[in-house]
Amino acid sequence: MKIALMNEFSQAAKNPIILNELTGVANKYGHTVFNVGMDGDNDNKLTYVHLGIIGAILLNSKAVDFVISGCGTGQGALMALNAFPGVNCGYCLDPTDAYLFAQVNNGNALALAFAKGYGWGGELNARYIFEKAFEGEKGLGYPPERRESQNANAIILNDMKKAAGKSLIESLKSIDQTLLKDAIKGERFQKCLFENSQDAELTAYIKSVLA
Amino acid sequence: MKIALMNEFSQAAKNPIILNELTGVANKYGHTVFNVGMDGDNDNKLTYVHLGIIGAILLNSKAVDFVISGCGTGQGALMALNAFPGVNCGYCLDPTDAYLFAQVNNGNALALAFAKGYGWGGELNARYIFEKAFEGEKGLGYPPERRESQNANAIILNDMKKAAGKSLIESLKSIDQTLLKDAIKGERFQKCLFENSQDAELTAYIKSVLA
Amino acid sequence: MKIALMNEFSQAAKNPIILNELTGVANKYGHTVFNVGMDGDNDNKLTYVHLGIIGAILLNSKAVDFVISGCGTGQGALMALNAFPGVNCGYCLDPTDAYLFAQVNNGNALALAFAKGYGWGGELNARYIFEKAFEGEKGLGYPPERRESQNANAIILNDMKKAAGKSLIESLKSIDQTLLKDAIKGERFQKCLFENSQDAELTAYIKSVLA
Amino acid sequence: MKIALMNEFSQAAKNPIILNELTGVANKYGHTVFNVGMDGDNDNKLTYVHLGIIGAILLNSKAVDFVISGCGTGQGALMALNAFPGVNCGYCLDPTDAYLFAQVNNGNALALAFAKGYGWGGELNARYIFEKAFEGEKGLGYPPERRESQNANAIILNDMKKAAGKSLIESLKSIDQTLLKDAIKGERFQKCLFENSQDAELTAYIKSVLA
Repeated sequence: MKIALMNEFSQAAKNPIILNELTGVANKYGHTVFNVGMDGDNDNKLTYVHLGIIGAILLNSKAVDFVISGCGTGQGALMALNAFPGVNCGYCLDPTDAYLFAQVNNGNALALAFAKGYGWGGELNARYIFEKAFEGEKGLGYPPERRESQNANAIILNDMKKAAGKSLIESLKSIDQTLLKDAIKGERFQKCLFENSQDAELTAYIKSVLA
Repeated sequence: MKIALMNEFSQAAKNPIILNELTGVANKYGHTVFNVGMDGDNDNKLTYVHLGIIGAILLNSKAVDFVISGCGTGQGALMALNAFPGVNCGYCLDPTDAYLFAQVNNGNALALAFAKGYGWGGELNARYIFEKAFEGEKGLGYPPERRESQNANAIILNDMKKAAGKSLIESLKSIDQTLLKDAIKGERFQKCLFENSQDAELTAYIKSVLA
Repeated sequence: MKIALMNEFSQAAKNPIILNELTGVANKYGHTVFNVGMDGDNDNKLTYVHLGIIGAILLNSKAVDFVISGCGTGQGALMALNAFPGVNCGYCLDPTDAYLFAQVNNGNALALAFAKGYGWGGELNARYIFEKAFEGEKGLGYPPERRESQNANAIILNDMKKAAGKSLIESLKSIDQTLLKDAIKGERFQKCLFENSQDAELTAYIKSVLA
Repeated sequence: MKIALMNEFSQAAKNPIILNELTGVANKYGHTVFNVGMDGDNDNKLTYVHLGIIGAILLNSKAVDFVISGCGTGQGALMALNAFPGVNCGYCLDPTDAYLFAQVNNGNALALAFAKGYGWGGELNARYIFEKAFEGEKGLGYPPERRESQNANAIILNDMKKAAGKSLIESLKSIDQTLLKDAIKGERFQKCLFENSQDAELTAYIKSVLA
């Protein structure tokens, strides 16, 4: 699985710590991590709103399969990611949340709190969350006897989101273009997208915005 | 403030408990509660997807100012609510989450976990969350010196969501019409909407779907 | 009620923050706070072991009715306090813990984690814990129908602790005397004890150690 | 490592679930589990006070190396276990607590909440706690640079507890003998003690009480 990590400005200083934990867990399970947001306080500024945009592009292009995101409380990243089609972002404060989200909702993104409740052991809690988010099969249901119903609802949610909104390219064309351009100007984001995208039309569109 | 509570089928049996806690807190602060989802296991079945639809209608019509929602883990309700324009739904596991969401994000909906982590004290935790979600002024920022930046980002998120998606009526017209009809058939939901909506066009549209 | 706050060296810098939250809540309920541990990094060094000693002295002398303590994780303070007779110290990570401890166990001390999980909102979580620890009547049981059984067990525990151990003065005479002298040398601790103790023998003993 | 699991009456029905999780984790690490408390609602009644007694006997006799205990909130078991010499019992609500307790305090018992916060995922949270409680080396400190100081304090606490109290046999002789006899009458407890005790005097004493 390909996993993108994306941090915004308020917790950018924690990026190396979280990246280290995520990479450690991902390596154990054979996944690959792309660090596509801010990697420290001096990087180009991204807010959680920008994270929603780049998360949606990477997931919809299939450049990555999963997004780990967050902000001070994680709520901003959560809402920004869920604003776009093709993104199903849950929220995790502990490892059990991660397991249940994988089994019940089988989404493709998680938002974490990188300042709220983040003290001694904050990096351990992130590690344990990643262990349960990326371990084993997903969509098994919880409790298991609810699997069929839970999987059905996940599909209904996806279909509803797709129908309710515009296509991603239409969405991106409709939003403030300065916001879009700021979101996509990071080199690591672009490299991740251009080398891994499976959606030629979306890639071409992003390139046209950058041109 | 007018607050809608909406429970889905998997935790419908807890509705009376949560309603009691929410009403207790709301009364203390002078708010009004509308119980618009399932009120027990034998009510018309609603899934978290339906909650997203009725939450969006009530918030966009200004029939209510805030939505308290949830499901087994809360994640499904969270994603379904955030699928629509005009809805900014956070996720709360403890009272501090509720306070920070009110101050940092100033959203209009919360999703709670009504089965995950819900054992002894589950109703107390809900009560304490409501106390902090509905107490005092909102949008003050946290930490306070970040207020301006946080308020700005909340507005940018709202504007982006509005631009990125369709209007709510267009959204509702685009989704599976059986899903929509099932979502809106509850009497308590209809009463809340028809008696409190401030959006004549949206009300008329919902009535036309019901006709 | 008289409440003692005691911080050790590793989290001494947070004392002013926690004191502020505790005092705010205590004032609301008409309680008095005594800040008897370290009030900053430059105060006389106290470890969690020392906190156990001074907590036991203050509670057994009835100089105070309740102790709020803690350390990095809170576990050290918890164990050190519970090492002595007349001390029933619980552990709190959230407000519901505080409420249940008051109703089920009706103890006289709480240990909190002042570094683990202490990030954004750490001071809020402390405040909310204090609100539920010091609000209203105690020993009501939870769930209420278990009150009788829970109160009975609390008494059995107290009686067992009293019988199982030495008297406090015997305990203090038995432990390392340097440890004891370091524990009791703080001026604010001494002032709290000498002005409020209701146990002349224990006070006299402490004075003899200081002499 | 030999690990004893002990449940009391209020959560006895959960014993098979917790035993299953603990055994699963213990097997992975090569540890052995002894189920010495109640195994269901119809077993001989034990309260958390009894758990403190049998926990102290098993740990002091070295029949087991570690005790997993708990009750509705875990607080009663926590206090009852810490009432005796040779027992250092921490409190865990999440896996990070378990890791930090192992590294910072290196104690020999944990109390868990088997009703508070125990809903969907309660057994998962227990499993994840066990994973972190029993994985790898202990006493490494957290953060690592505090290892020396933290290990020193753990020893000081142990020494102080030993000096402050009576010997375990003296303690057991001093407490209510009906309480003691009720605590030790379980067959699984006796089997665990008699087959594994490394303290002939303590074993002989317990046998004399049973005679």
